[in-house]
Amino acid sequence: MQYYLNGFRGGDPDVMNAAPGRRDRTPYAPLPDKVDVLIVGCGPAGLCLAAQLSQFPEIDTMIIERKPGPIEKGQADGVNTRTMEMFQAFGFAETVKRESYWVNQTTFWTPDPNNPAHIRRIGRVQDVPDDSSEMPHTLLNQARVHELFLDVARNSPARLEPDYGWALRDLTIETSTDDHPVTVTLENTGVNAGETTVVRANYVVGCDGARSNVRKAIGGDLHGDAAHQAWGVMDILANTDFPDVRQKCLVTSAEEGNVLILPREGGYLFRMYVELDKLNPDERVSNRNLTADHIIAAANRIMKPYSIDVKEVVWWSIYEIGHRLTDRFDDVPDSDRATRTPRVFTAGDACHTHSPKAGQGMNVSMQDTFNLGWKLAHVLLGRAEASLLHTYSAERWTEAKRLIETDHAWARIMSAPPGESELDGSDMPRFQKQFIENLPFTGGLAVKYDPSRLVGPPTHQELATGEEIGRRFHSAPVVRVSDAMQMQLGHVAEADGRWRIYAFAGRHDSSAPGSPIHNLTDWLANDPASPVVKYARPDEDIDGLIDLRAVFQQTFDALHYEDIPALLKPEKGKYGLQDHEKVFCVDHKGAGDIFDMRGIDRARGCMVVVRPDQYIAHVLPLDGFEELSRFFDGVLTRPAND
Amino acid sequence: MQYYLNGFRGGDPDVMNAAPGRRDRTPYAPLPDKVDVLIVGCGPAGLCLAAQLSQFPEIDTMIIERKPGPIEKGQADGVNTRTMEMFQAFGFAETVKRESYWVNQTTFWTPDPNNPAHIRRIGRVQDVPDDSSEMPHTLLNQARVHELFLDVARNSPARLEPDYGWALRDLTIETSTDDHPVTVTLENTGVNAGETTVVRANYVVGCDGARSNVRKAIGGDLHGDAAHQAWGVMDILANTDFPDVRQKCLVTSAEEGNVLILPREGGYLFRMYVELDKLNPDERVSNRNLTADHIIAAANRIMKPYSIDVKEVVWWSIYEIGHRLTDRFDDVPDSDRATRTPRVFTAGDACHTHSPKAGQGMNVSMQDTFNLGWKLAHVLLGRAEASLLHTYSAERWTEAKRLIETDHAWARIMSAPPGESELDGSDMPRFQKQFIENLPFTGGLAVKYDPSRLVGPPTHQELATGEEIGRRFHSAPVVRVSDAMQMQLGHVAEADGRWRIYAFAGRHDSSAPGSPIHNLTDWLANDPASPVVKYARPDEDIDGLIDLRAVFQQTFDALHYEDIPALLKPEKGKYGLQDHEKVFCVDHKGAGDIFDMRGIDRARGCMVVVRPDQYIAHVLPLDGFEELSRFFDGVLTRPAND
Ligand SMILES: Cc1cc2nc3c(=O)[nH]c(=O)nc-3n(C[C@H](O)[C@H](O)[C@H](O)COP(=O)(O)OP(=O)(O)OC[C@H]3O[C@@H](n4cnc5c(N)ncnc54)[C@H](O)[C@@H]3O)c2cc1C
Ligand SMILES: Cc1cc2nc3c(=O)[nH]c(=O)nc-3n(C[C@H](O)[C@H](O)[C@H](O)COP(=O)(O)OP(=O)(O)OC[C@H]3O[C@@H](n4cnc5c(N)ncnc54)[C@H](O)[C@@H]3O)c2cc1C
Repeated sequence: MQYYLNGFRGGDPDVMNAAPGRRDRTPYAPLPDKVDVLIVGCGPAGLCLAAQLSQFPEIDTMIIERKPGPIEKGQADGVNTRTMEMFQAFGFAETVKRESYWVNQTTFWTPDPNNPAHIRRIGRVQDVPDDSSEMPHTLLNQARVHELFLDVARNSPARLEPDYGWALRDLTIETSTDDHPVTVTLENTGVNAGETTVVRANYVVGCDGARSNVRKAIGGDLHGDAAHQAWGVMDILANTDFPDVRQKCLVTSAEEGNVLILPREGGYLFRMYVELDKLNPDERVSNRNLTADHIIAAANRIMKPYSIDVKEVVWWSIYEIGHRLTDRFDDVPDSDRATRTPRVFTAGDACHTHSPKAGQGMNVSMQDTFNLGWKLAHVLLGRAEASLLHTYSAERWTEAKRLIETDHAWARIMSAPPGESELDGSDMPRFQKQFIENLPFTGGLAVKYDPSRLVGPPTHQELATGEEIGRRFHSAPVVRVSDAMQMQLGHVAEADGRWRIYAFAGRHDSSAPGSPIHNLTDWLANDPASPVVKYARPDEDIDGLIDLRAVFQQTFDALHYEDIPALLKPEKGKYGLQDHEKVFCVDHKGAGDIFDMRGIDRARGCMVVVRPDQYIAHVLPLDGFEELSRFFDGVLTRPAND
Repeated sequence: MQYYLNGFRGGDPDVMNAAPGRRDRTPYAPLPDKVDVLIVGCGPAGLCLAAQLSQFPEIDTMIIERKPGPIEKGQADGVNTRTMEMFQAFGFAETVKRESYWVNQTTFWTPDPNNPAHIRRIGRVQDVPDDSSEMPHTLLNQARVHELFLDVARNSPARLEPDYGWALRDLTIETSTDDHPVTVTLENTGVNAGETTVVRANYVVGCDGARSNVRKAIGGDLHGDAAHQAWGVMDILANTDFPDVRQKCLVTSAEEGNVLILPREGGYLFRMYVELDKLNPDERVSNRNLTADHIIAAANRIMKPYSIDVKEVVWWSIYEIGHRLTDRFDDVPDSDRATRTPRVFTAGDACHTHSPKAGQGMNVSMQDTFNLGWKLAHVLLGRAEASLLHTYSAERWTEAKRLIETDHAWARIMSAPPGESELDGSDMPRFQKQFIENLPFTGGLAVKYDPSRLVGPPTHQELATGEEIGRRFHSAPVVRVSDAMQMQLGHVAEADGRWRIYAFAGRHDSSAPGSPIHNLTDWLANDPASPVVKYARPDEDIDGLIDLRAVFQQTFDALHYEDIPALLKPEKGKYGLQDHEKVFCVDHKGAGDIFDMRGIDRARGCMVVVRPDQYIAHVLPLDGFEELSRFFDGVLTRPAND
């Protein structure tokens, strides 16, 4: 991590220098009248967006929450590998890795054919396939994830904090103005309950959960399963003779239904999901009267011959949810797309819901706003036209739809009676096979955005077969040349709204003057058509918007750091200090060769252009100047003062 | 990391539940009259001890500091691998890994024979030899290390915080009583400067630096180099064309002296040490009038043809220090050892000082008090006789002496004129060779305690040739059986004052009943001669003092967790919850086989007994019951209420 660019400052480096001119936050200070962005709801979607926008103190962001303060426990707990990669960009992946449970293996239990009243283990699957991500799949209390985002926002230049105890009641959009066109009525839910106030915003993002008022205000409905599926879920401290209690388990009993076991952070806690549809008919009808004791009793019936001795029920709930989706994630109907740009968005559960079985709800909600955050920042900072905001709904709706379809298929298989799903002719039971097939989905790694102004055509995809355009940039090991640091290339990407270009050098390129890497940096630094020249602002560092990194095939000690071109050692910040963290080479200590691992053309090298949300926008030859120029011209606008 | 043992509690798991009955810390509350331990000085030695003792809220610990608050910058910055291993036990190694600079390579520069006025690189050395430690060698502002210890103390059950603005003036020891025999006079250095107060303590630990008043009070002198060696040191934000500015460098010029470059945290900052003895004679005489500008000018002369353009001098100092040592680190002269036990100790710079060249000062200071902390806790909690405290001075004095000798030899080589040290007949220059030879010392890994009541004889050393008795336990990769977690075995050791027994199973032992591991656990859990039976307290968990872990040679999926004996799945805490983190097996994913890496006898297995400070106390056969019993009888005492 890089810090002290603008001078030394003692203390925790995650606490950034506060920007001037922040809102008065002393007690009883009034709410602002106008903001750039109003985020509604402090769930994972809202907090991820707040953490992202708080990096830009020029943007006036407000986040409200109906509840009086942060939640303490319960709700979702699955953090997939893709989300962990995003947490890395926000700076707290290491904290999550340390505190959380890691899902290394998933085991499968079905009725013992010799004694169908008893379950027995029939298989194990490595939960994160080798090299599918450098990150683990983890499980951690949703409340803790909230806290980590809150810390990011609190420590940001904007020192952003939520306004608790305020609920959005309604909103209206005045399409005829660009000056804070959204008028929002907020209602106090705290000491002055019922009191209302009005805030005007340039943009409103409804992260207000499945009963979203924002969605209703822009005329959205959730469509999908009419029949809700009910799950009993409990987080417990308990003893058991079940040997796999510290592994993720899918347990299918012959007569008593299914259980999903999710070990949790801290080594003692675990979660059990019990599918309530499979309960005895008399229990099912009275779902609403179920208590934790019913869930415990059901779990004990399903787990026979093992038993669970519960010592503390930390949290429990009957979680009823279907797979549902709205028609669009913003306020602009298809018919108006050509004439106006969105002002109001929905994200997370507000626009799509998922069953907890695949553990997607929290992940996909955060990925929504990670997609939206940088786009809002680009538009509000004048880096892109407002039409960029159309891509949010386009990209995320398609993904939500795909996910729901996968989720659906999985739910059918999971719920099929054991006789049917268990043996499929082959050795491996059908649901284990399906589980393995689903891993890219559950890991969040199957997301692939369609070609658009933000996702280039696959013309040169063969130059980097393992970095597919439209998918997330797949990190791999490298060594940083200046200090021989072994690290993950993907970890240079911070949640800072910047684009990255990874320039992979061809075999013979050791960055001597005249080499393709030099030609690229010369063009990028000097040519009027270069996006760096065109879109950099006079008041920011040369890498303030587009951050170039290079990766060589030699080992670090075979390169001459003195020959590296200036754009790869740019002088930055108030002192013009050299940045020495732009140049990499292949790992020489056995972690793997990034060129081989990601199918990079060793002879020709290539450029991989990566969006601020870590998705691959383009793969181009090292001399693909014109295509690079054209791509960025389709996304960015010149600084207004040009 | 394990938490929630005594019930769920939201928030940061590093913040432990506060113990009842803590000192009144509201403003203007008076200082206590009596404490168990008074620590003098908030440097690395004092803070490490405070962090350690704060884990035992039953022990009343006070730490004072003459200054008005924590330092902000400067002083030492080297954290060697051994210290990183200790930080792991305190829970903040990951934070340091993330924030710090990692010393991966050290490079050597000497005058170019063709142009002796210019330096050129003559070699590189990998700074941490492969598998010498699982930890990196890092560089980080000493002030930040202080903060991380302060956080541990603040978040501990004792919620320990320093009392700033109080200096120890004097102390007296009343040898005739055991009730708080040390009387300490403190002087206020803050608003009420000059005001004095008296505190009585059972133990006083002088961590009060090179001019220690505590040392003086117990009649200690520092002996050693009469001639102080002066170094100019500066932490700077600067640009340079020197290509290795992000590597640790030893630079020797032909005429202008030597420079040591230490890149630092954050990617921009670096430190330069300039040996002032090599300055022009006119500069040398006026050492006292030197400024940062002189140091910068000297550095620029030494570094030719490269130059350094300094943008901010964050901190600079003329650091004059020799290699010096007191006769003993406690108040008991040799003549009195048989008749009384220590009441006052010195640690860190208070009893030994080192040149900064090998970066040992801060490390060795913390290792002193890590050695002392658990011993004080054992005695104050009635787990051991007070005579245990004699071992502190015995062990640490010998180490300090050895280190000073190595340091001395190194200083001589480093300072030798280039002609002499450069080429030694062989290819590699003498100082590079010596540097490589010294790596175990500079890494802190050469420490080896002599046989004593705390360090058993090497009778069975051949059972674990890579885990040498008297040295620190050398961690290696394992997989935790309950959840297939890949991890470092050594990372189970926390700074919690507990002993650990690692039982390595023989080849055929899969923990079926009747196996050697079962025999060991049966004996440990039930035999009246077992140290677990003898020294466990009725009010604590069965692993409250001696923590048994087992390591098997099979892969995790070949073991039957249900067969693991109860002592390896003990029920703990207020609910009697099972602990599932005691059983390990070899790593099956290529990280290495711990039996091979550490020379464990595959046929017979063995026990490795490890002290609370991570040093190996004994290596024994799995059925070495009698020797195990005898060893612990020499260290521990039975609970008083037995
Ligand atoms: C009780 C409960 C139990 C759940 N259990 C599970 C589970 O077991 N497993 C699982 O995978 N997922 C579970 N989920 C779902 C999971 O938590 C969500 O998928 C995830 O939190 C979605 O994040 P979000 O930010 O979109 O919405 P949410 O987390 O629902 O956040 C919405 C926030 O907006 C606030 N809000 C709502 N309306 C307004 C308003 N008008 N004004 C201001 N604030 C408002 C809400 O108070 C809430 O804090 C559960 C959700 C709930 C509510
Ligand atoms: C100015 C300075 C510069 C240094 N520069 C370097 C360097 O460049 N490189 C390097 O490797 N090492 C350097 N060191 C040495 C390194 O900091 C020490 O080796 C290390 O801090 C030793 O830790 P310690 O806890 O034993 O003592 P210290 O860190 O010296 O801590 C002692 C503490 O006790 C306090 N104290 C002293 N007397 C009293 C009293 N009577 N009552 C109460 N409190 C008291 C002091 O204020 C101080 O906070 C430097 C030290 C100093 C002081």
